[in-house]
Amino acid sequence: MSYESRSEHRFSFGLWTVGNVGRDPFGGPVRETLSPVQLVELLEEVGAWGVNLHDNDLVPIDATAHEQDQIVGDLKKALDATGLVVPMATTNLFSDPVFRDGAFTANDPRVRAFAIRKTMRAIDLGVELGATTYVFWGGREGVETDSSKDPLRALGWYTEALNFLCAYVKDQGYDLRFALESKPNEPRADIYLSTTGAMLAFIETLEHSEMVGVNPEVAHEHMAGLNFTHQVAQAWSMRKLFHIDLNDQIPGRYDQDLRFGSANPKAAFFLVKFLEDVGYEGSRHFDAHAYRTSDYEDVKAFARGCMRTYLILAEKAARWNADPEIQALVADITADDGSVPATLGPYSPELATRLGDLEIDRRALAARGQPYERLDQLTVELLLGVR
Amino acid sequence: MSYESRSEHRFSFGLWTVGNVGRDPFGGPVRETLSPVQLVELLEEVGAWGVNLHDNDLVPIDATAHEQDQIVGDLKKALDATGLVVPMATTNLFSDPVFRDGAFTANDPRVRAFAIRKTMRAIDLGVELGATTYVFWGGREGVETDSSKDPLRALGWYTEALNFLCAYVKDQGYDLRFALESKPNEPRADIYLSTTGAMLAFIETLEHSEMVGVNPEVAHEHMAGLNFTHQVAQAWSMRKLFHIDLNDQIPGRYDQDLRFGSANPKAAFFLVKFLEDVGYEGSRHFDAHAYRTSDYEDVKAFARGCMRTYLILAEKAARWNADPEIQALVADITADDGSVPATLGPYSPELATRLGDLEIDRRALAARGQPYERLDQLTVELLLGVR
Amino acid sequence: MSYESRSEHRFSFGLWTVGNVGRDPFGGPVRETLSPVQLVELLEEVGAWGVNLHDNDLVPIDATAHEQDQIVGDLKKALDATGLVVPMATTNLFSDPVFRDGAFTANDPRVRAFAIRKTMRAIDLGVELGATTYVFWGGREGVETDSSKDPLRALGWYTEALNFLCAYVKDQGYDLRFALESKPNEPRADIYLSTTGAMLAFIETLEHSEMVGVNPEVAHEHMAGLNFTHQVAQAWSMRKLFHIDLNDQIPGRYDQDLRFGSANPKAAFFLVKFLEDVGYEGSRHFDAHAYRTSDYEDVKAFARGCMRTYLILAEKAARWNADPEIQALVADITADDGSVPATLGPYSPELATRLGDLEIDRRALAARGQPYERLDQLTVELLLGVR
Amino acid sequence: MSYESRSEHRFSFGLWTVGNVGRDPFGGPVRETLSPVQLVELLEEVGAWGVNLHDNDLVPIDATAHEQDQIVGDLKKALDATGLVVPMATTNLFSDPVFRDGAFTANDPRVRAFAIRKTMRAIDLGVELGATTYVFWGGREGVETDSSKDPLRALGWYTEALNFLCAYVKDQGYDLRFALESKPNEPRADIYLSTTGAMLAFIETLEHSEMVGVNPEVAHEHMAGLNFTHQVAQAWSMRKLFHIDLNDQIPGRYDQDLRFGSANPKAAFFLVKFLEDVGYEGSRHFDAHAYRTSDYEDVKAFARGCMRTYLILAEKAARWNADPEIQALVADITADDGSVPATLGPYSPELATRLGDLEIDRRALAARGQPYERLDQLTVELLLGVR
Repeated sequence: MSYESRSEHRFSFGLWTVGNVGRDPFGGPVRETLSPVQLVELLEEVGAWGVNLHDNDLVPIDATAHEQDQIVGDLKKALDATGLVVPMATTNLFSDPVFRDGAFTANDPRVRAFAIRKTMRAIDLGVELGATTYVFWGGREGVETDSSKDPLRALGWYTEALNFLCAYVKDQGYDLRFALESKPNEPRADIYLSTTGAMLAFIETLEHSEMVGVNPEVAHEHMAGLNFTHQVAQAWSMRKLFHIDLNDQIPGRYDQDLRFGSANPKAAFFLVKFLEDVGYEGSRHFDAHAYRTSDYEDVKAFARGCMRTYLILAEKAARWNADPEIQALVADITADDGSVPATLGPYSPELATRLGDLEIDRRALAARGQPYERLDQLTVELLLGVR
Repeated sequence: MSYESRSEHRFSFGLWTVGNVGRDPFGGPVRETLSPVQLVELLEEVGAWGVNLHDNDLVPIDATAHEQDQIVGDLKKALDATGLVVPMATTNLFSDPVFRDGAFTANDPRVRAFAIRKTMRAIDLGVELGATTYVFWGGREGVETDSSKDPLRALGWYTEALNFLCAYVKDQGYDLRFALESKPNEPRADIYLSTTGAMLAFIETLEHSEMVGVNPEVAHEHMAGLNFTHQVAQAWSMRKLFHIDLNDQIPGRYDQDLRFGSANPKAAFFLVKFLEDVGYEGSRHFDAHAYRTSDYEDVKAFARGCMRTYLILAEKAARWNADPEIQALVADITADDGSVPATLGPYSPELATRLGDLEIDRRALAARGQPYERLDQLTVELLLGVR
Repeated sequence: MSYESRSEHRFSFGLWTVGNVGRDPFGGPVRETLSPVQLVELLEEVGAWGVNLHDNDLVPIDATAHEQDQIVGDLKKALDATGLVVPMATTNLFSDPVFRDGAFTANDPRVRAFAIRKTMRAIDLGVELGATTYVFWGGREGVETDSSKDPLRALGWYTEALNFLCAYVKDQGYDLRFALESKPNEPRADIYLSTTGAMLAFIETLEHSEMVGVNPEVAHEHMAGLNFTHQVAQAWSMRKLFHIDLNDQIPGRYDQDLRFGSANPKAAFFLVKFLEDVGYEGSRHFDAHAYRTSDYEDVKAFARGCMRTYLILAEKAARWNADPEIQALVADITADDGSVPATLGPYSPELATRLGDLEIDRRALAARGQPYERLDQLTVELLLGVR
Repeated sequence: MSYESRSEHRFSFGLWTVGNVGRDPFGGPVRETLSPVQLVELLEEVGAWGVNLHDNDLVPIDATAHEQDQIVGDLKKALDATGLVVPMATTNLFSDPVFRDGAFTANDPRVRAFAIRKTMRAIDLGVELGATTYVFWGGREGVETDSSKDPLRALGWYTEALNFLCAYVKDQGYDLRFALESKPNEPRADIYLSTTGAMLAFIETLEHSEMVGVNPEVAHEHMAGLNFTHQVAQAWSMRKLFHIDLNDQIPGRYDQDLRFGSANPKAAFFLVKFLEDVGYEGSRHFDAHAYRTSDYEDVKAFARGCMRTYLILAEKAARWNADPEIQALVADITADDGSVPATLGPYSPELATRLGDLEIDRRALAARGQPYERLDQLTVELLLGVR
């Protein structure tokens, strides 16, 4: 197996990922800043298919229109030269001090207006570059203390902003879908709509919910100790898995954005298996960055590693599906003796009566062991390459 | 202030809460088992308004119809004698070994059928006792390893079960609403629909979603390190706060079910303030239990403490709303200079143009400090009773 | 590779591990209780070398001397027949209600006396069975609220108990070392001496510290989100790694006691590599239990899986040490240009002066990338069996 | 009660705390940089007693000797003018890129040498300013992957560095003690010696352990979900509580450094009560910073709030100790019926025999309830100011 990335894998990276200069709360940058064009070239070199960006990853917040044209023109040339595409774009609504109390949910109405306007302009930019997915990560939409903001008003403002921006996209005739990304905390003590589940529920309250889905991120759900694959499965079941952010994270810590599969390869395996089994066709976006100890050679190793690990795990998922011993156990686990319908089907009074009359020997059912240890051990051994 | 509980406070406890005998993973019971009637009397003595129950808190799983009649009759007499009501009921779908791989999402279809049937019977019992809210906590609906169960099939089974049971309730003409309760883990390694947000999203996929809401529990969201008040606010904003489980919990641990407000009184304050401010009128249900060191005198102290702390915090919430210095800060924080509409209103191309033309001085906005430390310190001092 | 366990691997299990009947906070037992003799036979069947026990795993707390003799005699016959040994024993100071407020640190002095006496008798039993390591896990040594117990007094009582018991062992002339096991919480809200580090510090305060070491447990350190290998390394560096409890655990949750390597095989790899590299010769004890969904066939799969995974990881550790590309990176990472001594050596004024005069180009050093992403990716690929 | 800070309270702040400009992983500074002199004046204004500093908080890493003299001279004038003292100093071994792989434990020996030399110079500076406590927080002493560094070698390097620096201090005749500060993670994925307990154990291995103690920090232990008061109690019991870092933190998150008592006032209460009860006489140092939403007026409110909350809690601790109902419960809880000695005393064979003969009715002891719910509820009510 070559584990070489190809365009059909739809592997993408953000400019901010391979371009991360290593600043953290306790230290400044350790790598020189590369230009967007240099980053695109780096991504071509490592074999990526797409490059994603925040507006200000590309265009400084204070750039003039002329400067923006120049920068965008340079990027387009680099995209043409390399063949990379821009499948997704997003807005930086968190770095500038103006957003220190939030963007769409800032207490100051002028900040909210500014945030919406900035997003409109960033959407224009993203569409110009070919993006068909637009991500919203509301990193500052939250509080340090609930004395400072009314959560109901905040949710109302959030709703208004997204309704406004959906309408803007439709009004402009853009071919663009929104993908909302949750995070429990950091940089705010508590961020609103803190899980993928909360985002899925929130979407249902929006005026144009059909154009809004989610962008779950491994690290963000792991921070809360949640099973990421389960969040993705719920999003998929609701046809809302519009994008995905792949990286890794040990639970219960600061946001680590580690190389995909590097913290817990077993959890990553179940995720890859899910995405491959259901035939997910969106971007496989890596929202991760190299260790602060890395130079740019090591940044490339990091980027290649993300993709290679995905492909290794995808191959293992296929093997799992083809392994006779494993599949025999799976068949055994879900075996149906025919005594009840495999699915109960829609309610009817007759069905309720039949269910009431059904002979079910509770103790016999309880005595039936499920060989999950055996199955999980086989899975581990397959994962470790010894079967 | 007397902090005496009264019926209008709608304070309720489960039979399983004050009746908890102190069993835990490392030790057996430490308190004698009290009968349901004794527990109702204990709850009357401490001043509760309601008593809630799982089917098997009252009626043993193997009881005959005759035994059930006897037990239910005794309970009704106790309810009459004490004036307590049964506002909520629920099904035990987790204790019996038959449910060791789940109830509605067990891999074995016979277990799923048994679980639905058991719930139908338990609904009948709850309605007979006067319950108008029916809680679903799917404690075993999950996995230890994702090799053992397909999360999409599991979600499908979960949906079928709830659709079936909604239809059953409507078919019976019961005045009953469902409230779904999430939990991230324990006793399963990962429980499906692990947060209140996930439940709110799931509800939107059900056939009779109008009769289904949530029952958020402090401990369950704190286990995942989430801000509980924010989850409650989202549920309230979607008109889905059908019930609430009050207790306390340090984040990132086993399920503690501590006395309300005893782990973190400040977090409890914001929750009580929210419920009081919005005028929540449902049960204030305490799903907690006394320490394993307690005898029944101390169990009563525990139960009284839950209610007293709620009332103390409610009084503090009222004081917060009336405190001139605090309110002046709140007014300052949300001040609007009129330069932008406080809410942007529905999208129109004209509004978008006006927004584009708006003069906004980003640096000036960024320079405006928000006195949140001051406000939070005043809140702490109010909470500690020194202002 | 056969990955067959052999006696030199020193794989041991507790009676309570394979004998776990599946009780948890939300449900009763799901497996029948096996006798100690049956459990020894099961362990022989799966290929274990040793069996460990709490006093009451073997002898009920209320057994008469005659009953104890009978039980112990039966066990010894089973040990003889199977060849299994009892390398470690311990006291159950947590299950009985008498210990609900702690054993050595209970507020009631009679409970403290009872706990010490029970431990003396349990030590006698362990020694009789051949144990040379005696584990102390103080599961109830803690509080739910710091209002209930003075932590200084508790530490004092803890110290007295261990000093007393050390002296007892010496007085009896037993060949026995103590191994203290920490845990942050569960079943108490907070357990004293909550980490391996705290235990190592505590040991230094004991009268006979030379006979006291630690028994670190994967799950207990992972509950606190700590890197287990680092705790083990500190214990090893202090020559205090007297025993080890192998299992697995997702951080920030209830105590899971999962099959070794099943939650995070990469973390398990670094642990195994450490133990093999330093030549740890103590027991490799699995303090884990099978899922509650398992029957006894699956319990055996669980037990075999613990040992197989260890051996697979040990083989991978050997391959890591022999992999030329990996070792070249390791050499590069720790390369020394000779400009400073590899170790600075003991302080002397002259050395301090030389250090002050040393030419060090801070920016050049900072510019040197460390290829840790590359190294870690090679490690992941080796672990996954694709190199 | 005035809750005014006075010098005998020994309240200190770091230059980096009130001088924090609000940079975080997702955004740049929001407050202008104040000079050390301005910060000292700010601290005088809010009523602090001491100001602590890292070498580079005061003197830029590239300053010339002349510049350093100028800066230090200015600071000394400000100290004289304001009356503030510098009780503690420390080294910045984490911000500069040279330390990206650690300081004392960097794989590169030149970095290790540079770190030791930098610390020697910073010690000189601290002593010049009057510091008698020198803190070591090894923020970069760790790894992102255990493939990158051998934990035993790292511990060895750490030991050498501290032995060297202890000897340097003694050789210089400085009146200075070291205080080691642990942290589990951030900015490294795993930091060595991750808890206060681990530090206490490590100290015992040092050559001059008598001059080395710990500097526990609330946030760092809470990040790991540990009970901070228990860590402090262990340090106190070992006479190693040389310094303390007060702030606040929700468990299981990024390092928050919140205003003291603002995340969980109940946990803060038990800490203050402990420090006051034992008569801790060291600095009460606040290692916290204001929210990123704050301007400098709010930074002052933050600093005043830290001190006021401490004093409010100290007053409550005194009330707790004087409350007759609470004290009656405490007496009851620890009551001794005289049937066993309150402490067992040193081991002797006779004592062991007497203990063996002691009449202890296990079931009677188990039946004795401990009124901990009652006591904790009284504590909560006292804390909330309603008793």
